Amino acid sequence: MDYMNGPGRHHLFVPGPVNIPEPVIRAMNRNNEDYRAPAIPALTKSLLEDVKKIFKTTTGTPFMIPTTGTGAWESALTNTLSPGDRTISFLIGQFSLLWIDQQKRLGFDVDVIESEWGYGANLEAMASKLAADTAHKIKAICIVHNETATGVTNNLATVRKILDHYNHPALFLVDGVSSICALDFRMDEWGVDVALTGSQKALSLPTGMGIVCASPKALEASKTAKSVRVFFDWNDYLKFYKAGSYWPYTPSIQLLYGLKAALELIFEEGLDNVIARHSRMGKATRLAVEAWGLKNCTQKEEWFSDTVTAVVVPPHINSNQIVKRAWERYNMSLGLGLNKVAGKVFRIGHLGHLNELQLLGCLAGVEMILKDVGYPVKLGSGVAAAAAYLQNSTPMIPSRI
Amino acid sequence: MDYMNGPGRHHLFVPGPVNIPEPVIRAMNRNNEDYRAPAIPALTKSLLEDVKKIFKTTTGTPFMIPTTGTGAWESALTNTLSPGDRTISFLIGQFSLLWIDQQKRLGFDVDVIESEWGYGANLEAMASKLAADTAHKIKAICIVHNETATGVTNNLATVRKILDHYNHPALFLVDGVSSICALDFRMDEWGVDVALTGSQKALSLPTGMGIVCASPKALEASKTAKSVRVFFDWNDYLKFYKAGSYWPYTPSIQLLYGLKAALELIFEEGLDNVIARHSRMGKATRLAVEAWGLKNCTQKEEWFSDTVTAVVVPPHINSNQIVKRAWERYNMSLGLGLNKVAGKVFRIGHLGHLNELQLLGCLAGVEMILKDVGYPVKLGSGVAAAAAYLQNSTPMIPSRI
Amino acid sequence: MDYMNGPGRHHLFVPGPVNIPEPVIRAMNRNNEDYRAPAIPALTKSLLEDVKKIFKTTTGTPFMIPTTGTGAWESALTNTLSPGDRTISFLIGQFSLLWIDQQKRLGFDVDVIESEWGYGANLEAMASKLAADTAHKIKAICIVHNETATGVTNNLATVRKILDHYNHPALFLVDGVSSICALDFRMDEWGVDVALTGSQKALSLPTGMGIVCASPKALEASKTAKSVRVFFDWNDYLKFYKAGSYWPYTPSIQLLYGLKAALELIFEEGLDNVIARHSRMGKATRLAVEAWGLKNCTQKEEWFSDTVTAVVVPPHINSNQIVKRAWERYNMSLGLGLNKVAGKVFRIGHLGHLNELQLLGCLAGVEMILKDVGYPVKLGSGVAAAAAYLQNSTPMIPSRI
Amino acid sequence: MDYMNGPGRHHLFVPGPVNIPEPVIRAMNRNNEDYRAPAIPALTKSLLEDVKKIFKTTTGTPFMIPTTGTGAWESALTNTLSPGDRTISFLIGQFSLLWIDQQKRLGFDVDVIESEWGYGANLEAMASKLAADTAHKIKAICIVHNETATGVTNNLATVRKILDHYNHPALFLVDGVSSICALDFRMDEWGVDVALTGSQKALSLPTGMGIVCASPKALEASKTAKSVRVFFDWNDYLKFYKAGSYWPYTPSIQLLYGLKAALELIFEEGLDNVIARHSRMGKATRLAVEAWGLKNCTQKEEWFSDTVTAVVVPPHINSNQIVKRAWERYNMSLGLGLNKVAGKVFRIGHLGHLNELQLLGCLAGVEMILKDVGYPVKLGSGVAAAAAYLQNSTPMIPSRI
Repeated sequence: MDYMNGPGRHHLFVPGPVNIPEPVIRAMNRNNEDYRAPAIPALTKSLLEDVKKIFKTTTGTPFMIPTTGTGAWESALTNTLSPGDRTISFLIGQFSLLWIDQQKRLGFDVDVIESEWGYGANLEAMASKLAADTAHKIKAICIVHNETATGVTNNLATVRKILDHYNHPALFLVDGVSSICALDFRMDEWGVDVALTGSQKALSLPTGMGIVCASPKALEASKTAKSVRVFFDWNDYLKFYKAGSYWPYTPSIQLLYGLKAALELIFEEGLDNVIARHSRMGKATRLAVEAWGLKNCTQKEEWFSDTVTAVVVPPHINSNQIVKRAWERYNMSLGLGLNKVAGKVFRIGHLGHLNELQLLGCLAGVEMILKDVGYPVKLGSGVAAAAAYLQNSTPMIPSRI
Repeated sequence: MDYMNGPGRHHLFVPGPVNIPEPVIRAMNRNNEDYRAPAIPALTKSLLEDVKKIFKTTTGTPFMIPTTGTGAWESALTNTLSPGDRTISFLIGQFSLLWIDQQKRLGFDVDVIESEWGYGANLEAMASKLAADTAHKIKAICIVHNETATGVTNNLATVRKILDHYNHPALFLVDGVSSICALDFRMDEWGVDVALTGSQKALSLPTGMGIVCASPKALEASKTAKSVRVFFDWNDYLKFYKAGSYWPYTPSIQLLYGLKAALELIFEEGLDNVIARHSRMGKATRLAVEAWGLKNCTQKEEWFSDTVTAVVVPPHINSNQIVKRAWERYNMSLGLGLNKVAGKVFRIGHLGHLNELQLLGCLAGVEMILKDVGYPVKLGSGVAAAAAYLQNSTPMIPSRI
Repeated sequence: MDYMNGPGRHHLFVPGPVNIPEPVIRAMNRNNEDYRAPAIPALTKSLLEDVKKIFKTTTGTPFMIPTTGTGAWESALTNTLSPGDRTISFLIGQFSLLWIDQQKRLGFDVDVIESEWGYGANLEAMASKLAADTAHKIKAICIVHNETATGVTNNLATVRKILDHYNHPALFLVDGVSSICALDFRMDEWGVDVALTGSQKALSLPTGMGIVCASPKALEASKTAKSVRVFFDWNDYLKFYKAGSYWPYTPSIQLLYGLKAALELIFEEGLDNVIARHSRMGKATRLAVEAWGLKNCTQKEEWFSDTVTAVVVPPHINSNQIVKRAWERYNMSLGLGLNKVAGKVFRIGHLGHLNELQLLGCLAGVEMILKDVGYPVKLGSGVAAAAAYLQNSTPMIPSRI
Repeated sequence: MDYMNGPGRHHLFVPGPVNIPEPVIRAMNRNNEDYRAPAIPALTKSLLEDVKKIFKTTTGTPFMIPTTGTGAWESALTNTLSPGDRTISFLIGQFSLLWIDQQKRLGFDVDVIESEWGYGANLEAMASKLAADTAHKIKAICIVHNETATGVTNNLATVRKILDHYNHPALFLVDGVSSICALDFRMDEWGVDVALTGSQKALSLPTGMGIVCASPKALEASKTAKSVRVFFDWNDYLKFYKAGSYWPYTPSIQLLYGLKAALELIFEEGLDNVIARHSRMGKATRLAVEAWGLKNCTQKEEWFSDTVTAVVVPPHINSNQIVKRAWERYNMSLGLGLNKVAGKVFRIGHLGHLNELQLLGCLAGVEMILKDVGYPVKLGSGVAAAAAYLQNSTPMIPSRI
């Protein structure tokens, strides 16, 4: 029997991969094509232009690499840094942990600034380190914009301000995997040097494309960076960009057409409207959590994430049980707690192609599950709190006015 | 701009066409085929066997006609009756009205038994007429199992009991368009002579296949029925059934493969479980309506429909406004009130490929819409009432235990 | 095992259903929608305008009926004629035979003009009958534009000339199932009163939509036509056209979007270019047949069909064997000989979404099959003859210049 | 205008990406799923078992990495070798050149054995080097099984024999990108230590999955290999294999379901039958080339490739013109000549989901194109030569007997 068979639609509320819009599924429903024939270079050229918009950059150079977020990280690091280079990195959850692990394995001298899980990056500590680093040994600040494990969003504008304050030349590398196209992100304005995301997150595509965008300064750094790299080497791309054939190796034809459709939907809705929608989803979810009498894993409002909410369960409940029940009884996927917060939190992903009624269905489901596992929730309470907010804030659908 | 573009999935809650399961969409995603090559007859043969199960018949003969429910009606009538034949028909809503209109236009002598909209078929009146009809002038009882306009389900077992009581030979013709595969329906046990449904209803396929199932008595009647018919003539099908090529004209290849996938899902879930699921959906919806302080258009519990609920709005509200708002603001389609109840009711279709969280998302949406249009609903109230019931009654998903 | 599984693509060369273009398959890959919400009426409105172009009419009124070609026939006849009305109909092959059979069963007084299979409609005989019919008893000329069974195309311009010559008011009804969108057809110029086609033919869609186009004179006739009809009644459509909701019953959402995509492709290529392409396909096929030393079932060049070629096999060969072998060994579907020419001809359908190399692959396959069944063909001979012509006549692809 | 719009199907005859079977396109037509929910690990587990069969290994460990062939190369090298390690590598065409380039950039000491393009790997030279290497400085033999640029297939069995003859412990690393699942390949029997392929080649999937299979000896080597790697590190996979969750980062849900469907088709046809089919395709293509009076780029029969044929054009013709014309006029994609043979050869890819009539259509097209560009080919000659062979050798389709 096929696990995915069941009555009705599956409710996908993990923080990635996320729901794919029907027009994107349609656009990808196609045979392969010769990527050296004129169609694919022409498509690629226009995508490289359009994709810059989701990074809010005009000066950046994007690379659409057939890989995942982990590969995108590796691309960002190996193209800009040399083994032994010092980086500052913030350990605040599972994904920042994994990135730090990668940085170490790639041979960098990682200066880890750790926070309790649920807290944001300690930018004061970073400021101190930068202040002390008059010799400019620190080559890069590596920061996860949105830590998917704890639902914590870091303040990137402040990172830039601190760098500027100390006039520090370190590169500013941002993991935007669960933020770009969902949270406010401004590559040029914030002077981000490398930003990256994965296709399966807010872009609402299948997994398989890591999009990395490099500032002129990052491109310059790539000329001298000594990290060994071939598959992830930007220079191979740049050679093919110049030649107009764009691809050093075979891209996924389907993902290119899918990206085209995804961007069309995003631009039709308006990127700022997309971000506002994520803000509504995040707020509504948090109101529900509060109404249930549960705690957000995120410890301060300034770090609340609009793409994922990690909900802390009472000590006598195992959060895995909640995720299991969602799957087995209500045809819903919720995110598990990872590593330090395993069993202690479950996560509601609310990013990508999603709307109000989908979220309210999810929240209604979580209420039933909470009751299933013995937590004395008042059914309807979270939905009511979320709906009271959404009923006031949901705009008309642009295509239907 | 494409109307259907908008954030997140569209919420389809009209009583047909309904949501198509992803495996069915997949199964239909194909090129055409030669319907005279061996693949299609083999597929058709197995479908004709399997489709009998959803009618709960072993003796019936099904016809899968490339048409809609209206065409299926015409097929049922013209193959069994002759112009001038007397039929009894129940006028209880828009769809029974349309069927009666068709019967008249086809030249039958229709004895209409009318009820207020919201009431079920007046079976006492039928009993009287049958009792009086000692000459057996009445050739057929035509009854809509589930009146989609008002959400009224008629009691077919009682119709059979009355026919038997008077030992009346009239044919028993049933419109099961919004009931079969969703409500309890037993062709053989209830001695139904012709039953019919449309692919876009509880089977959860696209529109385009009217499925008509004929009892041996109906097939016998077709030999002498004098109504003019060609496209809808069962005899053309029967000739091709006998020859093993099955199709007097070209079927939709895609719908055949889609039907196969749809039936596999239904049988995997279990037809009785599917019916039980619809019962949960109906009950949950009615509990929400009650919690909102609104009235069900259906006047007695015995007629409550588990596939569609027509909700009466207060006099100062135009129900069309609710449907409009659902579409424009919440990406949801609700059913309009039709004819006599236009502007007075809106309808929630809860049939086909659907589950608990989808319905709760819909109910949460209806609450916000009610508030939008000025009805003083307590947000969360309907969801809470429905969830309290569903949290107790929702079974585990068979494929995941 | 699934019959359609096999190495490589299936080669579909029956005269319908035909290959669906990938963009059309994509367009149809979607969930159902509420056909009463604004999207479907807006789409329908634009389709009704666009579909007129394939009939080359500005004054006609199209009906897109959820049915097959057989149903479209019935719609054409019952809306314009009354039982007992005299029609002239030409028996020249299986499909004209079936239409005549339908006319008889619907109660018309059919004056059949028969030709040998392989010959076109005997228009001289028609002229005589019209000349004699000073009382105007003949109410309609019913003619199949392209007889799919024998590959015979009738000359509709001449029919009109004869009607005009005798100043005869008979309606001019045309079955364009295997011609419209592939052969030169001019509804307005030729004064056709009803023309019809099916979605699965040159439009290259799945089966399920019968498109019937009525001239003002035909619409006028429909007001007094006494044939019984409900499902096929144009008046129901006209009422809904007027109301702006367009559909008296549920259309196939998927076919509507598919038709939009199909028409876009046709208009992008240019309807006249599409017709020219069919002409090339027909010519190339006939050159191959000639090179093989086989006869075309069509007896005179003036009737040669550009959508289907019926190839006569030598007496000692059973053409069914050729079709069987194509299916079992070469993953190709060819058309069987039907009725009078069963076993004597096989048919190559070359209509719809098709290009030169597909056809040449088919012809190469037919050569191998002919050899398989013992016909002493010179391999490559037909391909060479066809290619010599195509290499001179194939234009550049518009989207790639 | 969309480049891919044009009459009829596109004819894809590049040596990758190749045509995707319709059942595989269907299987991939789906929404995302949570890869941590039970469905994906269960699917992955069964795929890891099944995928071993296409490598003909029972002892190997496969890794299905979200990357391309280039990434798969990098995975093979970095997991088994350390910087400075000596490799023997054969330069015989563009893809072996690129792999050698990668080996150098990754820091290995590459001993390049060069042949003229069109010749196979010089195994005698390898034998000499191995004989001289009594100190076992050579850590790996890196060989491209099938050089896609020139259509040259190397003899892997001989490589193994030579290694065994000298009792040399070097690892045996094979690029099987354009061979595995198409040519005879036997990982266990030939003692291959790492073999790899890409999803878009003979597996007939979209690009995006590099499949790397490691022998126990290769896995052992990975424990001490010092090449820097994170994204491509097998150890991360092995940890997740052990844990039963299988994925160190997010896989493409669609490619997993696609791979399942692709393998089902391959096993249904029978892997050896698939290989035999490729042999037929290769032979037929070469017979056509010979009939046209053109030369195969491959210089000796022992190296003839059954997945791609590089055809040498006469000096006065630019092969790019042939590829351009195929695209612009005949809706076909052929492979360009690369690097040293740019302008001198064009390539016909005949791998993956393909059958006889598709190939014959392609060959007929090439004939017309040759004529278009001024080469005096006899139309039909190549098709005749190929068909004469295919008509004798094509088996019945298993699913249709």
